[in-house]
Order: sequence, then structure tokens, then C-alpha cells
Amino acid sequence: MNYKKIGGILGKIMILEGLLMIAPLIVSVIYKEGFTNMMAFLVPVVLLVVLGGLLQLPKPERNNLYQKEGFALTALAWIVMALFGAIPFTVNGDIPNYADAFFEIMSGFTTTGASIIADITTVSYSGLFWRSFSHWIGGMGILVFVLIFIPESDDGSSMHLLRAESPGPQVGKIASKMKATVSILYLIYLGLTILEIVMLMLDEPIAGYENDRFFFSLLATFGCAGTGGFGFIPGSMELFHPFSQYVMATFLVLFGCNFGLYYLILIGKIKEVLKSEELRTYFIMIACAVGFIFLSLMGKFEAFGQVYNAEEAFRHSYFQVASIITTTGYSTTDFNLWPMLGKTTLVVIMFIGAMAGSTAGGMKMSRIVIALKGAYINVRTLINPRYVPKVKFEGKTLDTKTINDVFAFITLYLFILLGVVFLLAFDSVNGQIITVVSDAGTHEVSHGFFSNFSAALACISNIGPGFEAVGPYSSYLNYSVFSKIILSFTMLVGRLEILPVLILFNRRTWKRI
Amino acid sequence: MNYKKIGGILGKIMILEGLLMIAPLIVSVIYKEGFTNMMAFLVPVVLLVVLGGLLQLPKPERNNLYQKEGFALTALAWIVMALFGAIPFTVNGDIPNYADAFFEIMSGFTTTGASIIADITTVSYSGLFWRSFSHWIGGMGILVFVLIFIPESDDGSSMHLLRAESPGPQVGKIASKMKATVSILYLIYLGLTILEIVMLMLDEPIAGYENDRFFFSLLATFGCAGTGGFGFIPGSMELFHPFSQYVMATFLVLFGCNFGLYYLILIGKIKEVLKSEELRTYFIMIACAVGFIFLSLMGKFEAFGQVYNAEEAFRHSYFQVASIITTTGYSTTDFNLWPMLGKTTLVVIMFIGAMAGSTAGGMKMSRIVIALKGAYINVRTLINPRYVPKVKFEGKTLDTKTINDVFAFITLYLFILLGVVFLLAFDSVNGQIITVVSDAGTHEVSHGFFSNFSAALACISNIGPGFEAVGPYSSYLNYSVFSKIILSFTMLVGRLEILPVLILFNRRTWKRI
Repeated sequence: MNYKKIGGILGKIMILEGLLMIAPLIVSVIYKEGFTNMMAFLVPVVLLVVLGGLLQLPKPERNNLYQKEGFALTALAWIVMALFGAIPFTVNGDIPNYADAFFEIMSGFTTTGASIIADITTVSYSGLFWRSFSHWIGGMGILVFVLIFIPESDDGSSMHLLRAESPGPQVGKIASKMKATVSILYLIYLGLTILEIVMLMLDEPIAGYENDRFFFSLLATFGCAGTGGFGFIPGSMELFHPFSQYVMATFLVLFGCNFGLYYLILIGKIKEVLKSEELRTYFIMIACAVGFIFLSLMGKFEAFGQVYNAEEAFRHSYFQVASIITTTGYSTTDFNLWPMLGKTTLVVIMFIGAMAGSTAGGMKMSRIVIALKGAYINVRTLINPRYVPKVKFEGKTLDTKTINDVFAFITLYLFILLGVVFLLAFDSVNGQIITVVSDAGTHEVSHGFFSNFSAALACISNIGPGFEAVGPYSSYLNYSVFSKIILSFTMLVGRLEILPVLILFNRRTWKRI
Repeated sequence: MNYKKIGGILGKIMILEGLLMIAPLIVSVIYKEGFTNMMAFLVPVVLLVVLGGLLQLPKPERNNLYQKEGFALTALAWIVMALFGAIPFTVNGDIPNYADAFFEIMSGFTTTGASIIADITTVSYSGLFWRSFSHWIGGMGILVFVLIFIPESDDGSSMHLLRAESPGPQVGKIASKMKATVSILYLIYLGLTILEIVMLMLDEPIAGYENDRFFFSLLATFGCAGTGGFGFIPGSMELFHPFSQYVMATFLVLFGCNFGLYYLILIGKIKEVLKSEELRTYFIMIACAVGFIFLSLMGKFEAFGQVYNAEEAFRHSYFQVASIITTTGYSTTDFNLWPMLGKTTLVVIMFIGAMAGSTAGGMKMSRIVIALKGAYINVRTLINPRYVPKVKFEGKTLDTKTINDVFAFITLYLFILLGVVFLLAFDSVNGQIITVVSDAGTHEVSHGFFSNFSAALACISNIGPGFEAVGPYSSYLNYSVFSKIILSFTMLVGRLEILPVLILFNRRTWKRI
């Protein structure tokens, strides 16, 4: 390990995090939240900048990074970001327990959106802002940003980092130069973000929150853009007007698309966009999921004291599918009470996730397609052992290595999921009954197997809410500290797609050379 | 497809099934069950022998089988066996609905043990015998038997069938000749079966069933040997005395071992047996699972009106682990009411299963070990791209193809599992409340997500009972015909390890040549 070089980059990331944390500090000043709240951000800002600066001092003997170093650095950087990012919540009292605060901000940076806050109305404005802003930061990833826009790095090192941090099985350069590629991606991200804020501002303000119109538009957009999903008023997005809900669902679908496709649109290659298999599969999957849920919801919700009309059934189906398939986790209704077909459809798309190269989590649409094509090749080879596969994906013949990497990834995903479900079984919260107040009234749910299973799945796929005791109107608060730490790392494993975190546990990673 | 050759072998299998069905016919005569019950077996016996004989008439142009034909034949043979094997239940009225009877006998042959019979006391002796006997037949598989002991076949064809029908990632010949290999395996199977029957006869008879002592020992042993798990008295194995329960659990563990290891013991190579990694992992896994469940059970069962003492807690832990890891599904207590750690441990071992080359289902221990070693290789390659893997399994260096096949298998396993869970979501049984009477008293369970998830898992892993509405004291009766057919094929997919069934759905399989 090139410790000095890694320390140097880690330091730069810390400085950047410090600078980004000035934003919630400003929010704190604007809303006149008082001395403690301001210090809660000012202290870590100073800490991050000073410590980050100190890490710049040792001069590394070697200026490049090997692959393992790139991967390990990525995982370390995210852990360090969460360790410092948790400080404000504990200082200003929004989340007094540091382990809880670590869970919350890890959930933020990894764009999971799983929360341990039982009553969101107790959180300060600056706290709310920092939570949602962390989604926006984590969505695109900041390591690549650091490596590209702060000089002295070479293309090889940044490619390792891009591979480690970007979601999806393949990473392609869309422009000939790394810097140009990444600039375009960040600009598209920024552009879509601004567009959504403007669209949300067009809607009527929410009754009772007239003064927070811009603030809420900003926060809702951060959650959509990063496909994070932290709520900031009671009931997630339930109180937003239908127009806003449609806007958000549509932008969620857009943020779940591969950003490379927007670049192609910008340079006029719309035909190529239409040829994208992953895009087509993504839209077909969304249409099917919305269709199944819509049918299952029509008139079936009476049992819980609430009946949807056709428009509501469609809107809730569309919003929930957009939110879950992009692994965001916003909700407009208590989907934990839906009929089995609705719930199971959501579980299936929880595994799948949106497109590679987007800000979404999950296994990614392209991996599912590649795995299915790989299975087809296996069957064909069994039928004819001399069969030479020429199966294509996105116009290129699929090579064996890509297929096998995908199979390996899905296997590890399943193993880690099962391992986490097993670890959660030790929690004393199991079997407890909790009371949930949702749009369908007050009811009780038991913390059963489906709670743990969906919690583990929602964390590794970076979704946030699950079912039963961790449903959209509940929180992760009741889990023990041990479970919360496990789930925090599960989110990180999901966000960085397994290997960068696994590599930390091999002693060879830490060798001097 | 060499239709005539395939028809010929299929015919031989039908004749063999007809001959095997004479056994329940004899049971029917012994217990004087009357004309209808005898005809229920006699008619299909005659049908099978005559139709099977007719299929021998066309002379095939080509006498060998290609790989695809071997695989397709295997799947077809199992479907045909179930189609005819279901007839007696419908004729004698044990299971009036043919779809239910098909489910039941498919569950028997695939050694799943999932039942649609709500009250087992209504079933005839001959019916009980045929159900349990089908486990014993299905455990070792009958295709290979047909091909080996009835002449005119060559080794190449039978190797394809052995590959298609045998559980596990690799099939090795343990003796130089196919016929010798298979003979030894069947003899070991028979020897262990007789040994268990004798052991069970040593116990006191069950109160109220004094006359059924031998009959029950026979049936219990069939279920253990094939790792099937059909019950034949109310409460599965609950009424058996502790001694019998320990005997059964121990034989379950033995039937979950690779039969090749017994051969090694027979020829005195005990050192090689002790070197088996899969065996060691299997025993470690059993010990850990028993340990976790034992700890979770101690004194925690009061909530349901039943407290285990230490011996009971240990015995129930040991029996349930042995039963579930070997994918049998016998139970001695209502494990659906266990604390979360107990239930989750069972779910994890439901995925894993016992050793390859045994009669058990599931993914198999060796696949789990190979996948974990494959993951380790991936991490090592990431650390050092020039790393040349020399990771060994069972003394041999693991090659990339074996690892990738295992990854592909696990991925398909997960996809099929999710697909089945999704299809079960359409059932109108979802959300219904059913009343369960178990050793812990009467209680209600809701047919929720965990019911469908565990039903799909229990069927693909050939276990039988799941949790909640399909727990050890419930049945699969309440599912719709559609769901039952789906689950029947899920069992077959699990028993034949996916590819032989998938191959049926490709039109190229059915081409003339």
C-alpha cells in the first residue's frame, strides 16, 4: 500500500467534505438556529480541513495507485466521510447517539435513505439539509471528482477509482479524455437537479409548510437525484400534491437512467439511445411492475380503511415503482399494507435496481440481462457442446469474463444478504410488536422474518424502507447498535458493489508494497 | 432428438415403475383394503407395463444418446413417473383431485415431502406406503438404474443421465466401470436403509399404534433414506420416542453424506474420508446450526405455552437441523414458533443443503465451498492482477470452469426462487388466516410473504415444510391449482438441478436430429 499517496487523496476528500459541509452551516445561519447548531457544523468543517491539510504533507515515493489501492482507498474514503459526517447530528442533538448518527449519514452518502429518526419534526433545518445533501453528494460519488479536478493525478489511478465507485458491471469512457467524461456527467447531474427543483416550485405549496416551499423542493430533489430517499416531513412524500408526486416519480425514472445516454442525446445520437437494450428492459420492467401493482390495488385496499380511486391507484403504483426500482425509497402511501402481489413485485424490483451508470443501487438492470443471456448460453451449450456463443448485449458480443463476473457478483450478493439476515436474527427486537401510524390509520406490525429480510435487502440495495417493522412509516431505530453497524456496512457494500469493501479484509491489501 | 430411443428408455422406466408399484398393491392386499384400493394400484401397474412394452417396439436408427437427449429424457422421465404415480391416489379417493395427487407424488419422487393432505389419518395404508416409498425410489434416482441393469446401453449415454440426475456440481466414477460404481452405491443405500429399520424396531412402539410398529419403521426409514419427509401420523415425527428421534436424526446426517465416502470406507481408505473438505464443512455446519438453535431455544419457548428442558432443546435442535440441512422436512416440534435466531438458522441451511452425491437437495455444501473459494480468488486477483489461483478443493486445484458453473447455478437458483415467489403472489390464499394445531397448542398464522418465500425455497430445495402458513403443522392444500403446478415443477427443477428442466423449454431440443 502506498500509504502516503492514499493519505494524500484521503486528505483531499476530507477537505472537500469540509467545504461541502459549509452548505448546511449556511442553512443553520439562515434559519438562525443558534450557536450550538452552527458549531455542530463549524467544528467538523475546521477539523476536516486541518486534518485533511496535514495529510498532504508527507511526500509519497510513488505517485500512481495500483488497482488494489484504488479499491481500498474508495472504501476507506467512504468510511472516513461517514465518520466525520456523523459528528454534526450528535453535537446539535438531532441524533444524540453517535452510532445512530453514523448509520444515518452512511445511509445518506450511500443513497440508501434508511433512517433511525422516529419523529422527523424534531430535526433541525440544517440537520435535514445535511441528510438530504449527503444523498446528492453520494449519488455521483466524490472520489472521482477529487481525482479529476484536483491535479497531479494520472489517468490510470482515476480509472481504478471510477471502476470502484461507479455502479454497474462495466465502466466505459464516453469521451476520449477522463476529465471531459466526468465533467459532462457532473454537468448532466447538475442540470437535471436544477430542472427538478424548478418543476417542483411550480406546484402549490404544501398546506402548513408554506414558508418551506423552496427548502422542501431542494431537499426532495436531492433525494431524487441521488436516489436516496430521506424524508423530511412526516409520511415521506405523502403530503406532496399529486403534481409534485408525478414530477418526482418521473425524475426518479430519469435519474435511474445511465447518464451516458444523456450525453448521447446531447451530441444528437438519439438513435443509439433508442438501441440501448438496458434502457428498453428498464422501461418494460417499470411498465410491467406498475401494471401488476395497479391491478392488485384496484379496490383491494378497503381492509385497511382506505380505498384508492383509479387515479390514486395509478399514481401510487407509478410513484412506488419509480421509487423502489431506482432504490430511492420515497413513499406516498403505506405499501407495507398492499396486497401480496403489490408487495412481492416491489421485493423483486428491490433486487433488480435501475440502470448501471446511474445513481441507483441494487444489482442493476444490465446484470440481470447479462445473467439471463448467460443462462441461455449454458442451455444452448448443453444442447450442442460445439455451440460458439455469439450472444450480444448492447451491440457487442458478450464475452465469458463479463458473464462470469456477473454470476459471481450475484452469488456474493445473495451470500451477503443471507449473512446479514442471519446476523439480524440475534437482535432482541425480533418478535416485538410496534405501532405504525400511516395514511391507512393506526395498526400494529410484528418484527418478523420479513422485517429482517427486507431490511437487509433494502440496505444492500440502497433502498431504505423495507416491509413490516421497517416499512415506509417505521424506522430502523429499534435495532441494536450491533445490527445498526452491520447494516451500515451492508449499505456500503451495496453502494461500492462488494469488492472494494471485501478487499479491506484481506491482509495482503495492507502490505507496504 | 432420437425419439425412438428415448421412447424405448422411457418405456423401460415405465415398466420399472409398474413393477415397483406392485409393492403398495401387496400392502393393500395385506391390510385387506378392498377392491377399489387394490384396483387403484393394479390398473396403473397394467397400464405402465403395457404402454412401456409398446414403447419398446419401434427400433431406433441410432443407439446412442447425445447430451441434450440424456438431459431432456431425465426431465421427461420424472414427469411421466409423476403423471402415472398420481393415479392411485385419485382412484382410491385418498386425494380425489388429480392436480393435488400430481403435486403429492412429484413431492414424493423429488424427495421434497411437501404435502397437500390436511388430515393424514384419512389416507389408506397402501397410499401411505406409496407416498413414502416414492421418496426411497426418488432418492437415488431410477434412470441410472434402468440404464445400467438393463443391457443394450453404452457407457456414454448413461454418463449423461448420471450427470443429469445426480445431485452436485461434479460426478465422478468411484469404480472403473459404470455398472460396478452404481451397484455399489445402490447396495450402500439398501444397507443403510435396512440398518435404520432394524434400529427403529429396537424402540418401544408408539402408544396407540402398537400394531403398526414395523410399518412405521419402514415408512420413517424411506423418508430418511430418500431425505423426503412425508409424515404418516399426525404431527410428523412428534409422537416417536426420543430414542427413535435420535436414530432418525443420525441416519439423516448419514444419508446426507456423499455415498462415495462409504465406498472409500468399505475399501479401507478411511484416511481419504477424513481428508474430505465437504464432509468437514458439513459437520461443522451441523454443529454450528445445532449450537445456535440450542442456545436460542433454552427457556425461550414459554410464550407459546411450552418450555423445553435441556435434553428436549438439544434433541429438537439436533433433529430439526438434521432434517432441514438434508432437506428432508421431518419435524418433532413446531419450529415455526421458534425464536428468530432458530428460524433464520433453518432458512440459511435450507439454502445450503447437504453433501453432493447424497440423496439430499438444496444447493449442496460443495457448491457453497466452491463459491466462497471463487470469491476469495476474485479478491486476490483484484489485489494482484497477476495472481495465478492455486486454490484447492478436495485436494485438486479448482479450475475456472467449475467455479463459474457454480456461480451460474447459484444465480439461476436465486432467479427461479424469486420467479416462483412472484407467481405465488397471484394466489388468492395470500392474506388468509389459518388455524394451526401443533405441540405448542392452537394458534393462528397469516399467509404472508414469509409463507410464499419459504414455500418456494422449501420446494426448490426439496425440503417440504416451510414457515407460517406452510409450517410443519400445516399443508400446501390451500394453494390454488395454478400455484400447485408451479410448485410441482419447482420441486423437479430443484431435484434435477435446473438445467435438465430448462432444456425442455428450448425448441432446439426437440429437433429431429
